[in-house]
Amino acid sequence: MSDRRTVVCVSDHTGLTAATFAHSLVARFDGLEATYLLRPFVDNQAKLDAVVAEVDALAAAGLRPIVFSTLTDAALWQRLREANALVLGLFEHFVDTLAEELHIEPSHAVGVAHSIRDTSLYQLRLDALDFSLTTDDGLGIRHYGSADLIVIGVSRAGKTPACVYMSMQYGIRAANYPLTMDELSGGSLPESLQPYRPVLFGLTIDPVRLHQIRQKRRPDSDYSSIARCTQEIGLAERLFRQEGIPNVDTTTHSIEEITSTIMEVKGLSSRLD
Amino acid sequence: MSDRRTVVCVSDHTGLTAATFAHSLVARFDGLEATYLLRPFVDNQAKLDAVVAEVDALAAAGLRPIVFSTLTDAALWQRLREANALVLGLFEHFVDTLAEELHIEPSHAVGVAHSIRDTSLYQLRLDALDFSLTTDDGLGIRHYGSADLIVIGVSRAGKTPACVYMSMQYGIRAANYPLTMDELSGGSLPESLQPYRPVLFGLTIDPVRLHQIRQKRRPDSDYSSIARCTQEIGLAERLFRQEGIPNVDTTTHSIEEITSTIMEVKGLSSRLD
Repeated sequence: MSDRRTVVCVSDHTGLTAATFAHSLVARFDGLEATYLLRPFVDNQAKLDAVVAEVDALAAAGLRPIVFSTLTDAALWQRLREANALVLGLFEHFVDTLAEELHIEPSHAVGVAHSIRDTSLYQLRLDALDFSLTTDDGLGIRHYGSADLIVIGVSRAGKTPACVYMSMQYGIRAANYPLTMDELSGGSLPESLQPYRPVLFGLTIDPVRLHQIRQKRRPDSDYSSIARCTQEIGLAERLFRQEGIPNVDTTTHSIEEITSTIMEVKGLSSRLD
Repeated sequence: MSDRRTVVCVSDHTGLTAATFAHSLVARFDGLEATYLLRPFVDNQAKLDAVVAEVDALAAAGLRPIVFSTLTDAALWQRLREANALVLGLFEHFVDTLAEELHIEPSHAVGVAHSIRDTSLYQLRLDALDFSLTTDDGLGIRHYGSADLIVIGVSRAGKTPACVYMSMQYGIRAANYPLTMDELSGGSLPESLQPYRPVLFGLTIDPVRLHQIRQKRRPDSDYSSIARCTQEIGLAERLFRQEGIPNVDTTTHSIEEITSTIMEVKGLSSRLD
Protein backbone atom coordinates (compact mmCIF):
# COMPACT_ATOMS: atom_id res chain seq x y z
CA MET A 1 0.00 0.00 0.00
CA SER A 2 1.38 3.36 -1.00
CA ASP A 3 1.96 6.05 1.60
CA ARG A 4 1.39 8.92 -0.80
CA ARG A 5 -1.67 11.06 -0.27
CA THR A 6 -2.92 14.39 -1.44
CA VAL A 7 -3.91 16.68 1.41
CA VAL A 8 -6.43 19.33 0.37
CA CYS A 9 -7.02 22.34 2.61
CA VAL A 10 -10.38 23.99 1.89
CA SER A 11 -11.41 27.31 3.39
CA ASP A 12 -13.79 30.19 2.74
CA HIS A 13 -10.98 32.47 3.80
CA THR A 14 -7.16 32.33 3.44
CA GLY A 15 -6.85 28.67 4.39
CA LEU A 16 -3.84 29.37 6.62
CA THR A 17 -5.46 27.83 9.69
CA ALA A 18 -6.37 24.66 7.80
CA ALA A 19 -2.89 24.43 6.27
CA THR A 20 -1.10 24.99 9.58
CA PHE A 21 -3.27 22.39 11.27
CA ALA A 22 -2.89 19.87 8.45
CA HIS A 23 0.90 20.13 8.43
CA SER A 24 1.10 19.63 12.19
CA LEU A 25 -1.23 16.65 12.23
CA VAL A 26 0.23 14.93 9.18
CA ALA A 27 3.74 15.31 10.63
CA ARG A 28 2.70 12.79 13.29
CA PHE A 29 2.51 10.05 10.68
CA ASP A 30 6.00 8.90 9.79
CA GLY A 31 6.40 7.66 6.27
CA LEU A 32 3.40 9.46 4.84
CA GLU A 33 4.37 11.47 1.80
CA ALA A 34 1.82 14.24 1.52
CA THR A 35 1.28 16.58 -1.39
CA TYR A 36 -0.56 19.71 -0.30
CA LEU A 37 -3.20 21.62 -2.22
CA LEU A 38 -4.53 24.88 -0.81
CA ARG A 39 -8.02 25.94 -1.95
CA PRO A 40 -8.76 29.32 -0.31
CA PHE A 41 -11.75 31.67 -0.70
CA VAL A 42 -14.20 28.82 -1.41
CA ASP A 43 -17.24 30.86 -0.47
CA ASN A 44 -19.97 29.73 -2.86
CA GLN A 45 -21.47 26.59 -4.33
CA ALA A 46 -19.77 26.92 -7.73
CA LYS A 47 -16.30 27.15 -6.21
CA LEU A 48 -17.07 24.26 -3.89
CA ASP A 49 -18.28 22.11 -6.78
CA ALA A 50 -14.97 22.71 -8.53
CA VAL A 51 -13.07 21.59 -5.43
CA VAL A 52 -15.23 18.46 -5.04
CA ALA A 53 -14.69 17.59 -8.70
CA GLU A 54 -10.94 17.98 -8.22
CA VAL A 55 -10.97 15.80 -5.09
CA ASP A 56 -13.07 13.13 -6.82
CA ALA A 57 -10.67 13.10 -9.77
CA LEU A 58 -7.72 12.61 -7.43
CA ALA A 59 -9.55 9.77 -5.69
CA ALA A 60 -10.32 8.11 -9.02
CA ALA A 61 -6.64 8.27 -9.96
CA GLY A 62 -5.29 6.79 -6.72
CA LEU A 63 -5.93 6.71 -2.99
CA ARG A 64 -8.63 9.03 -1.75
CA PRO A 65 -7.34 12.41 -0.57
CA ILE A 66 -7.43 13.78 2.98
CA VAL A 67 -9.47 17.00 3.11
CA PHE A 68 -9.14 19.52 5.93
CA SER A 69 -11.96 22.06 6.03
CA THR A 70 -12.52 25.31 7.90
CA LEU A 71 -15.71 26.11 5.96
CA THR A 72 -18.28 27.94 8.09
CA ASP A 73 -21.34 27.69 5.85
CA ALA A 74 -23.40 24.59 6.74
CA ALA A 75 -24.59 23.91 3.17
CA LEU A 76 -21.07 24.12 1.73
CA TRP A 77 -19.77 21.84 4.48
CA GLN A 78 -22.48 19.23 3.84
CA ARG A 79 -21.69 19.23 0.13
CA LEU A 80 -17.95 18.90 0.78
CA ARG A 81 -18.59 15.81 2.90
CA GLU A 82 -19.98 14.06 -0.18
CA ALA A 83 -16.55 14.18 -1.83
CA ASN A 84 -14.71 10.90 -2.21
CA ALA A 85 -12.19 11.63 0.52
CA LEU A 86 -11.56 11.49 4.23
CA VAL A 87 -13.13 14.86 5.02
CA LEU A 88 -12.17 16.40 8.37
CA GLY A 89 -13.97 19.49 9.64
CA LEU A 90 -11.59 21.30 11.96
CA PHE A 91 -14.12 23.43 13.80
CA GLU A 92 -17.28 21.26 13.75
CA HIS A 93 -16.15 19.29 16.76
CA PHE A 94 -15.31 22.34 18.85
CA VAL A 95 -17.85 25.02 17.93
CA ASP A 96 -20.72 23.45 19.89
CA THR A 97 -18.58 22.74 22.94
CA LEU A 98 -17.35 26.31 22.96
CA ALA A 99 -20.85 27.73 22.38
CA GLU A 100 -22.11 25.82 25.40
CA GLU A 101 -19.26 27.07 27.56
CA LEU A 102 -19.58 30.68 26.46
CA HIS A 103 -23.36 30.90 26.11
CA ILE A 104 -22.79 32.69 22.82
CA GLU A 105 -24.19 31.54 19.48
CA PRO A 106 -21.41 31.02 16.92
CA SER A 107 -21.51 33.01 13.72
CA HIS A 108 -22.00 31.02 10.54
CA ALA A 109 -21.38 33.81 8.08
CA VAL A 110 -18.73 33.01 5.48
CA GLY A 111 -15.34 34.50 6.25
CA VAL A 112 -16.81 36.47 9.14
CA ALA A 113 -13.89 35.72 11.39
CA HIS A 114 -11.59 38.01 9.50
CA SER A 115 -13.79 40.13 7.31
CA ILE A 116 -12.75 43.47 8.75
CA ARG A 117 -9.13 44.37 9.03
CA ASP A 118 -8.05 45.70 12.36
CA THR A 119 -6.29 48.85 11.25
CA SER A 120 -4.36 49.37 14.46
CA LEU A 121 -2.95 45.83 14.37
CA TYR A 122 -2.02 46.26 10.72
CA GLN A 123 -0.23 49.46 11.62
CA LEU A 124 1.64 47.69 14.44
CA ARG A 125 2.94 45.03 12.04
CA LEU A 126 3.83 47.65 9.46
CA ASP A 127 5.70 49.73 12.03
CA ALA A 128 7.49 46.68 13.40
CA LEU A 129 8.56 45.57 9.92
CA ASP A 130 9.71 49.10 9.09
CA PHE A 131 11.72 49.08 12.28
CA SER A 132 13.33 45.72 11.51
CA LEU A 133 14.31 46.82 8.02
CA THR A 134 15.52 50.24 9.17
CA THR A 135 17.71 48.58 11.80
CA ASP A 136 18.80 45.57 9.73
CA ASP A 137 22.46 44.57 9.71
CA GLY A 138 23.73 47.21 12.11
CA LEU A 139 21.88 50.12 10.52
CA GLY A 140 19.94 52.76 12.45
CA ILE A 141 21.67 52.30 15.81
CA ARG A 142 20.12 55.60 16.90
CA HIS A 143 16.75 53.79 16.99
CA TYR A 144 17.94 51.10 19.44
CA GLY A 145 16.22 52.87 22.32
CA SER A 146 12.83 51.75 21.03
CA ALA A 147 13.84 48.16 20.22
CA ASP A 148 12.03 45.28 21.92
CA LEU A 149 14.98 43.11 20.97
CA ILE A 150 18.43 43.35 19.37
CA VAL A 151 19.64 40.13 17.77
CA ILE A 152 23.40 39.79 17.52
CA GLY A 153 25.64 37.26 15.78
CA VAL A 154 28.16 36.82 12.98
CA SER A 155 27.28 37.53 9.36
CA ARG A 156 24.78 35.01 7.90
CA ALA A 157 23.90 33.39 11.21
CA GLY A 158 20.18 33.97 10.46
CA LYS A 159 19.56 37.32 12.15
CA THR A 160 17.52 39.02 9.42
CA PRO A 161 14.95 36.23 8.89
CA ALA A 162 14.45 35.96 12.65
CA CYS A 163 13.86 39.69 13.03
CA VAL A 164 11.60 40.04 10.00
CA TYR A 165 9.56 37.01 11.07
CA MET A 166 9.06 38.36 14.58
CA SER A 167 7.91 41.72 13.25
CA MET A 168 5.29 40.11 11.00
CA GLN A 169 4.19 37.34 13.37
CA TYR A 170 4.27 39.14 16.70
CA GLY A 171 4.59 42.87 15.95
CA ILE A 172 7.94 42.85 17.78
CA ARG A 173 10.44 45.63 17.05
CA ALA A 174 13.60 43.59 16.44
CA ALA A 175 16.89 45.12 15.33
CA ASN A 176 19.92 43.10 14.35
CA TYR A 177 23.61 43.82 14.66
CA PRO A 178 26.40 41.85 12.96
CA LEU A 179 29.43 41.04 15.10
CA THR A 180 32.46 41.71 12.90
CA MET A 181 35.84 40.02 13.15
CA ASP A 182 37.35 43.25 14.49
CA GLU A 183 34.78 43.50 17.26
CA LEU A 184 35.02 39.80 18.09
CA SER A 185 38.79 40.00 18.35
CA GLY A 186 38.40 42.78 20.92
CA GLY A 187 36.84 40.20 23.23
CA SER A 188 34.21 42.51 24.69
CA LEU A 189 30.74 43.67 23.81
CA PRO A 190 30.84 46.44 21.17
CA GLU A 191 30.37 49.83 22.79
CA SER A 192 27.25 50.65 20.78
CA LEU A 193 25.49 47.59 22.26
CA GLN A 194 26.44 48.12 25.88
CA PRO A 195 23.46 50.33 26.83
CA TYR A 196 21.07 47.68 25.50
CA ARG A 197 22.16 44.54 27.34
CA PRO A 198 18.62 43.68 28.60
CA VAL A 199 17.30 43.31 25.04
CA LEU A 200 20.27 41.48 23.48
CA PHE A 201 19.90 37.94 22.16
CA GLY A 202 22.59 35.94 20.35
CA LEU A 203 22.39 33.60 17.37
CA THR A 204 25.01 31.00 16.70
CA ILE A 205 25.37 28.36 13.98
CA ASP A 206 27.49 25.34 13.12
CA PRO A 207 30.68 26.59 11.39
CA VAL A 208 30.36 24.05 8.55
CA ARG A 209 26.78 25.17 7.86
CA LEU A 210 27.89 28.81 8.03
CA HIS A 211 30.64 28.03 5.52
CA GLN A 212 28.04 26.53 3.14
CA ILE A 213 25.79 29.58 3.43
CA ARG A 214 28.65 32.05 2.97
CA GLN A 215 29.97 30.11 -0.03
CA LYS A 216 26.78 31.07 -1.86
CA ARG A 217 27.42 34.73 -1.24
CA ARG A 218 31.20 34.94 -1.78
CA PRO A 219 32.55 31.60 -3.04
CA ASP A 220 36.10 30.62 -2.07
CA SER A 221 36.78 33.83 -0.16
CA ASP A 222 38.48 34.24 3.20
CA TYR A 223 35.02 35.32 4.45
CA SER A 224 33.53 31.95 3.58
CA SER A 225 36.46 29.72 4.55
CA ILE A 226 35.96 27.01 7.17
CA ALA A 227 38.84 28.44 9.20
CA ARG A 228 37.33 31.91 9.32
CA CYS A 229 33.82 30.61 10.08
CA THR A 230 35.15 28.41 12.89
CA GLN A 231 37.12 31.29 14.36
CA GLU A 232 34.23 33.78 14.25
CA ILE A 233 31.75 31.34 15.79
CA GLY A 234 34.24 30.38 18.53
CA LEU A 235 34.74 34.03 19.43
CA ALA A 236 31.02 34.85 19.27
CA GLU A 237 30.07 31.94 21.54
CA ARG A 238 32.81 32.96 23.98
CA LEU A 239 31.42 36.49 24.01
CA PHE A 240 27.87 35.22 24.69
CA ARG A 241 29.13 33.11 27.61
CA GLN A 242 31.34 35.82 29.04
CA GLU A 243 28.63 38.49 28.85
CA GLY A 244 25.77 36.21 29.86
CA ILE A 245 23.84 36.80 26.64
CA PRO A 246 21.17 34.15 26.00
CA ASN A 247 21.54 32.53 22.60
CA VAL A 248 20.28 29.77 20.36
CA ASP A 249 21.85 27.64 17.64
CA THR A 250 20.06 28.17 14.33
CA THR A 251 21.62 25.16 12.58
CA THR A 252 18.89 22.61 13.16
CA HIS A 253 15.87 24.75 13.94
CA SER A 254 13.21 26.34 11.80
CA ILE A 255 12.57 30.08 11.85
CA GLU A 256 9.41 29.39 13.86
CA GLU A 257 11.36 27.44 16.47
CA ILE A 258 14.15 30.00 16.71
CA THR A 259 11.77 32.92 17.13
CA SER A 260 9.49 31.07 19.58
CA THR A 261 12.55 30.34 21.69
CA ILE A 262 13.65 33.98 21.61
CA MET A 263 10.17 35.15 22.60
CA GLU A 264 10.05 32.71 25.50
CA VAL A 265 13.58 33.28 26.80
CA LYS A 266 13.22 37.08 26.61
CA GLY A 267 9.73 37.01 28.11
CA LEU A 268 8.25 38.77 25.09
CA SER A 269 4.55 38.52 24.19
CA SER A 270 2.92 39.05 20.85
CA ARG A 271 1.73 42.63 20.39
CA LEU A 272 -0.96 41.38 18.02
CA ASP A 273 -3.15 39.37 20.42
CA MET B 1 -22.22 37.27 32.72
CA SER B 2 -18.93 38.63 31.47
CA ASP B 3 -17.71 37.79 27.99
CA ARG B 4 -14.06 38.05 28.91
CA ARG B 5 -12.02 34.88 28.87
CA THR B 6 -8.38 33.96 28.92
CA VAL B 7 -7.40 31.65 26.09
CA VAL B 8 -4.31 29.59 26.88
CA CYS B 9 -2.47 27.83 24.02
CA VAL B 10 -0.33 24.97 25.32
CA SER B 11 2.16 23.12 23.14
CA ASP B 12 5.28 20.99 23.46
CA HIS B 13 6.59 22.88 20.45
CA THR B 14 6.21 26.48 19.20
CA GLY B 15 2.46 26.65 19.83
CA LEU B 16 1.84 28.37 16.50
CA THR B 17 -0.66 25.74 15.37
CA ALA B 18 -2.62 26.01 18.62
CA ALA B 19 -2.57 29.82 18.47
CA THR B 20 -3.65 29.97 14.82
CA PHE B 21 -6.47 27.52 15.49
CA ALA B 22 -7.61 29.30 18.66
CA HIS B 23 -7.78 32.71 16.98
CA SER B 24 -9.83 31.33 14.09
CA LEU B 25 -12.27 29.48 16.31
CA VAL B 26 -12.68 32.25 18.87
CA ALA B 27 -13.36 34.77 16.08
CA ARG B 28 -16.63 32.93 15.43
CA PHE B 29 -17.98 34.11 18.77
CA ASP B 30 -19.03 37.73 18.52
CA GLY B 31 -18.73 39.70 21.71
CA LEU B 32 -16.17 37.43 23.33
CA GLU B 33 -13.18 39.40 24.50
CA ALA B 34 -10.28 36.98 24.63
CA THR B 35 -6.89 37.53 26.20
CA TYR B 36 -4.33 35.13 24.77
CA LEU B 37 -1.50 33.40 26.61
CA LEU B 38 0.98 31.31 24.66
CA ARG B 39 2.79 28.57 26.58
CA PRO B 40 5.23 26.89 24.17
CA PHE B 41 7.84 24.15 24.72
CA VAL B 42 5.83 22.52 27.53
CA ASP B 43 7.57 19.18 27.20
CA ASN B 44 7.88 17.83 30.72
CA GLN B 45 5.84 17.37 33.88
CA ALA B 46 7.37 20.32 35.74
CA LYS B 47 6.57 22.79 32.96
CA LEU B 48 3.07 21.37 32.66
CA ASP B 49 2.48 21.69 36.40
CA ALA B 50 3.39 25.37 36.16
CA VAL B 51 0.87 25.87 33.36
CA VAL B 52 -1.87 24.03 35.27
CA ALA B 53 -1.18 26.15 38.35
CA GLU B 54 -1.44 29.29 36.22
CA VAL B 55 -4.71 28.12 34.65
CA ASP B 56 -6.17 27.21 38.04
CA ALA B 57 -5.22 30.62 39.43
CA LEU B 58 -6.96 32.33 36.51
CA ALA B 59 -10.06 30.20 37.09
CA ALA B 60 -10.06 31.07 40.78
CA ALA B 61 -9.92 34.77 39.93
CA GLY B 62 -12.77 34.74 37.38
CA LEU B 63 -14.33 32.59 34.68
CA ARG B 64 -12.47 29.41 33.85
CA PRO B 65 -10.05 29.79 30.93
CA ILE B 66 -10.30 28.07 27.55
CA VAL B 67 -7.23 25.90 26.93
CA PHE B 68 -6.17 24.77 23.45
CA SER B 69 -3.62 21.96 23.48
CA THR B 70 -1.42 20.36 20.85
CA LEU B 71 0.46 18.26 23.40
CA THR B 72 1.50 14.88 21.99
CA ASP B 73 2.53 13.09 25.17
CA ALA B 74 -0.41 11.14 26.63
CA ALA B 75 0.62 11.64 30.28
CA LEU B 76 1.03 15.39 29.88
CA TRP B 77 -2.31 15.61 28.09
CA GLN B 78 -4.10 13.67 30.85
CA ARG B 79 -2.64 15.95 33.49
CA LEU B 80 -3.62 19.08 31.55
CA ARG B 81 -7.23 17.87 31.42
CA GLU B 82 -7.36 18.07 35.21
CA ALA B 83 -6.94 21.85 35.06
CA ASN B 84 -9.94 23.98 35.98
CA ALA B 85 -10.70 25.03 32.42
CA LEU B 86 -12.45 24.02 29.23
CA VAL B 87 -9.55 21.97 27.83
CA LEU B 88 -9.67 21.28 24.09
CA GLY B 89 -7.23 18.83 22.50
CA LEU B 90 -6.83 19.85 18.88
CA PHE B 91 -5.43 16.60 17.57
CA GLU B 92 -7.01 13.96 19.86
CA HIS B 93 -10.17 13.86 17.79
CA PHE B 94 -8.40 13.46 14.47
CA VAL B 95 -5.33 11.34 15.15
CA ASP B 96 -7.25 8.05 15.44
CA THR B 97 -9.40 8.76 12.40
CA LEU B 98 -6.34 9.54 10.36
CA ALA B 99 -4.43 6.50 11.68
CA GLU B 100 -7.27 4.25 10.58
CA GLU B 101 -7.37 5.81 7.13
CA LEU B 102 -3.61 5.69 6.62
CA HIS B 103 -2.87 2.40 8.38
CA ILE B 104 0.07 4.15 10.03
CA GLU B 105 0.58 4.38 13.78
CA PRO B 106 0.88 8.01 14.90
CA SER B 107 4.02 9.13 16.66
CA HIS B 108 3.61 10.20 20.27
CA ALA B 109 7.10 11.57 20.79
CA VAL B 110 7.19 15.13 22.10
CA GLY B 111 7.83 17.71 19.43
CA VAL B 112 8.58 15.01 16.88
CA ALA B 113 6.65 16.79 14.18
CA HIS B 114 9.25 19.48 13.78
CA SER B 115 12.29 18.22 15.60
CA ILE B 116 14.62 18.21 12.62
CA ARG B 117 14.93 21.28 10.48
CA ASP B 118 14.60 20.67 6.79
CA THR B 119 17.72 22.45 5.59
CA SER B 120 16.60 22.75 1.98
CA LEU B 121 13.30 24.40 2.97
CA TYR B 122 15.14 26.73 5.32
CA GLN B 123 17.45 27.67 2.48
CA LEU B 124 14.47 28.32 0.19
CA ARG B 125 12.94 30.73 2.68
CA LEU B 126 16.30 32.40 3.28
CA ASP B 127 16.88 32.80 -0.46
CA ALA B 128 13.36 34.12 -1.03
CA LEU B 129 13.72 36.66 1.79
CA ASP B 130 17.12 37.72 0.47
CA PHE B 131 15.54 38.18 -2.93
CA SER B 132 12.68 40.27 -1.55
CA LEU B 133 15.04 42.53 0.37
CA THR B 134 17.50 42.83 -2.53
CA THR B 135 14.66 43.83 -4.84
CA ASP B 136 12.71 45.96 -2.36
CA ASP B 137 11.42 49.35 -3.45
CA GLY B 138 12.65 49.23 -7.03
CA LEU B 139 16.14 47.98 -6.21
CA GLY B 140 17.91 45.17 -8.08
CA ILE B 141 15.89 45.35 -11.28
CA ARG B 142 18.57 43.18 -12.91
CA HIS B 143 17.27 40.27 -10.82
CA TYR B 144 13.69 40.54 -12.12
CA GLY B 145 14.24 37.62 -14.48
CA SER B 146 14.14 35.22 -11.53
CA ALA B 147 11.15 36.81 -9.77
CA ASP B 148 8.03 34.72 -9.16
CA LEU B 149 6.17 37.98 -8.71
CA ILE B 150 6.67 41.74 -8.99
CA VAL B 151 4.32 43.80 -6.84
CA ILE B 152 3.71 47.34 -8.08
CA GLY B 153 1.93 50.31 -6.56
CA VAL B 154 2.44 53.80 -5.18
CA SER B 155 4.70 54.48 -2.21
CA ARG B 156 3.32 53.09 1.09
CA ALA B 157 0.55 51.03 -0.51
CA GLY B 158 1.79 47.94 1.39
CA LYS B 159 4.18 46.36 -1.11
CA THR B 160 7.07 45.52 1.22
CA PRO B 161 5.04 43.69 3.91
CA ALA B 162 3.28 41.66 1.21
CA CYS B 163 6.56 40.63 -0.43
CA VAL B 164 8.36 39.85 2.81
CA TYR B 165 5.41 37.84 4.08
CA MET B 166 5.21 35.77 0.90
CA SER B 167 8.92 35.01 1.04
CA MET B 168 8.69 33.74 4.62
CA GLN B 169 5.31 32.00 4.37
CA TYR B 170 5.53 30.49 0.90
CA GLY B 171 9.18 30.76 -0.23
CA ILE B 172 8.01 33.01 -3.08
CA ARG B 173 10.58 35.31 -4.72
CA ALA B 174 8.66 38.59 -4.71
CA ALA B 175 10.14 41.90 -5.86
CA ASN B 176 8.41 45.22 -5.50
CA TYR B 177 8.53 48.37 -7.59
CA PRO B 178 7.19 51.78 -6.56
CA LEU B 179 5.22 53.67 -9.22
CA THR B 180 6.44 57.26 -9.01
CA MET B 181 4.44 60.35 -9.92
CA ASP B 182 6.63 60.85 -13.00
CA GLU B 183 5.94 57.35 -14.24
CA LEU B 184 2.25 57.54 -13.43
CA SER B 185 1.91 60.84 -15.31
CA GLY B 186 3.36 59.11 -18.38
CA GLY B 187 0.24 56.98 -18.46
CA SER B 188 1.97 53.79 -19.52
CA LEU B 189 3.76 50.92 -17.87
CA PRO B 190 7.37 51.87 -16.96
CA GLU B 191 9.80 50.46 -19.50
CA SER B 192 11.71 48.43 -16.93
CA LEU B 193 8.53 46.50 -16.07
CA GLN B 194 7.36 45.75 -19.60
CA PRO B 195 9.28 42.47 -20.05
CA TYR B 196 7.71 41.12 -16.86
CA ARG B 197 3.97 41.60 -17.47
CA PRO B 198 3.05 37.98 -16.60
CA VAL B 199 4.37 38.33 -13.04
CA LEU B 200 3.06 41.82 -12.26
CA PHE B 201 0.46 42.38 -9.55
CA GLY B 202 -0.86 45.75 -8.38
CA LEU B 203 -1.69 47.03 -4.92
CA THR B 204 -4.05 49.92 -4.37
CA ILE B 205 -5.32 51.64 -1.23
CA ASP B 206 -7.89 54.18 -0.17
CA PRO B 207 -6.38 57.69 -0.62
CA VAL B 208 -7.43 58.83 2.86
CA ARG B 209 -5.76 55.80 4.44
CA LEU B 210 -2.67 56.40 2.29
CA HIS B 211 -2.61 60.00 3.48
CA GLN B 212 -2.67 58.81 7.12
CA ILE B 213 0.19 56.39 6.53
CA ARG B 214 2.30 58.94 4.65
CA GLN B 215 1.67 61.58 7.33
CA LYS B 216 3.65 59.39 9.73
CA ARG B 217 6.60 59.37 7.40
CA ARG B 218 6.61 62.99 6.16
CA PRO B 219 4.01 65.04 8.02
CA ASP B 220 2.32 67.90 6.17
CA SER B 221 4.34 67.45 2.99
CA ASP B 222 3.13 67.50 -0.60
CA TYR B 223 3.94 63.75 -0.60
CA SER B 224 1.45 63.07 2.17
CA SER B 225 -1.30 65.50 1.10
CA ILE B 226 -4.78 64.19 0.35
CA ALA B 227 -4.67 65.79 -3.09
CA ARG B 228 -1.41 64.06 -4.01
CA CYS B 229 -2.53 60.68 -2.60
CA THR B 230 -5.83 60.90 -4.48
CA GLN B 231 -4.07 61.79 -7.71
CA GLU B 232 -1.48 59.01 -7.44
CA ILE B 233 -4.06 56.34 -6.61
CA GLY B 234 -6.33 57.50 -9.44
CA LEU B 235 -3.48 57.25 -11.95
CA ALA B 236 -2.28 53.90 -10.57
CA GLU B 237 -5.76 52.36 -10.78
CA ARG B 238 -6.17 53.67 -14.32
CA LEU B 239 -2.86 52.10 -15.26
CA PHE B 240 -3.90 48.73 -13.78
CA ARG B 241 -7.18 48.79 -15.74
CA GLN B 242 -5.58 49.96 -18.96
CA GLU B 243 -2.79 47.34 -18.83
CA GLY B 244 -4.98 44.55 -17.46
CA ILE B 245 -2.87 44.13 -14.32
CA PRO B 246 -4.70 42.25 -11.55
CA ASN B 247 -4.77 44.16 -8.30
CA VAL B 248 -6.17 44.23 -4.79
CA ASP B 249 -7.14 46.98 -2.38
CA THR B 250 -5.05 46.73 0.81
CA THR B 251 -7.20 49.15 2.84
CA THR B 252 -9.47 46.68 4.59
CA HIS B 253 -7.52 43.43 4.32
CA SER B 254 -4.91 41.79 6.50
CA ILE B 255 -1.50 40.86 5.14
CA GLU B 256 -2.63 37.21 5.14
CA GLU B 257 -5.70 38.05 3.04
CA ILE B 258 -3.78 40.23 0.61
CA THR B 259 -1.07 37.64 0.03
CA SER B 260 -3.52 34.71 -0.20
CA THR B 261 -5.40 36.63 -2.87
CA ILE B 262 -2.20 37.34 -4.80
CA MET B 263 -1.19 33.66 -4.62
CA GLU B 264 -4.59 32.56 -5.90
CA VAL B 265 -4.99 35.14 -8.65
CA LYS B 266 -1.46 34.56 -9.95
CA GLY B 267 -1.77 30.78 -9.66
CA LEU B 268 1.24 30.56 -7.36
CA SER B 269 1.79 27.63 -4.98
CA SER B 270 3.85 27.54 -1.83
CA ARG B 271 7.40 26.31 -2.48
CA LEU B 272 7.56 25.02 1.09
CA ASP B 273 4.96 22.20 0.92
